[in-house]
This record gives sequence, structure tokens and C-alpha cells, in this order.
Amino acid sequence: GVLGRAGITFRCQCIQTSSHFIHPVHFADIQMIPAGPHCINLEMIVQLKSGQKVCLNPGANWVKRIIKRILNRQKD
Amino acid sequence: GVLGRAGITFRCQCIQTSSHFIHPVHFADIQMIPAGPHCINLEMIVQLKSGQKVCLNPGANWVKRIIKRILNRQKD
Repeated sequence: GVLGRAGITFRCQCIQTSSHFIHPVHFADIQMIPAGPHCINLEMIVQLKSGQKVCLNPGANWVKRIIKRILNRQKD
Repeated sequence: GVLGRAGITFRCQCIQTSSHFIHPVHFADIQMIPAGPHCINLEMIVQLKSGQKVCLNPGANWVKRIIKRILNRQKD
């Protein structure tokens, strides 16, 4: 991606997003970049265990469900 | 962080986590690393707009609330 000195993005990172289901067992890393002056969209970039990076549609219901499930598993 | 060739972590990235509230307006980037063989914990690393990286406690209620709010703002 195009990252600034401090790793902060200056523009949208995703040219297109995928809404196709990917099982979270394949997720190595989930990056969420909130919308801001650099990009009008929330961006969600998942790195798969294969090393591949995929831009997900953060509005897809399965994506929201997976993130919430990962969070809800955590106890304070 | 200690990243492998494909940017995949080999061990826990966070030595300690913070539960102190940080307003999400300061978040440039949120990274979630699911638990796995490399690390027993879900890790949540937020990069602030200042460039600073902070490991948050993903079990803290305010953290869960912020992530869910960011997601819920998205329409499919």
C-alpha cells in the first residue's frame, strides 16, 4: 500500500472490494482504516495466511458478523 | 513489529495492552490479529494519527463499542 512515513495512508488503499465469503480461519490479520480526509470509505484489508491481501466490503453482513464474533469472544 | 516475509506475525506483538480510553477521532488505522499458534491472544494495535502505535485491550468494553460503531455505520 501507499503508506506515509508513519505508516499512515494518504489515499484510499482499495481499488475494489470483495463481498465473497472467506472463512475467518484463513485470516492472519485484519486492518481497518477509518474514513477520513484521505478516503471517503472505511477500508477493511484482510491479509490471508497465504500472504494474499484482500479488500473486503466492510458493509457486507458476513464481514460485520465475523468481526463482531471475534470481539465478542474477548472477556475484559 | 516482528513481521515475516508476507507480513504475517510469528509471535505476540503486544507486550502490554492499554485499557485507557482514546477517542476514535485519533485512530488512523486499526489492526486486529486473531489468536493463533503464534499468539494465544487476539491483538488489537491502533495507530494514532500522531504515528504512535498503541496496543489496546480488545476485551475492554469501550474498544468493542468503538469497533462495532465503526462497522454499524456501513451500509451494504
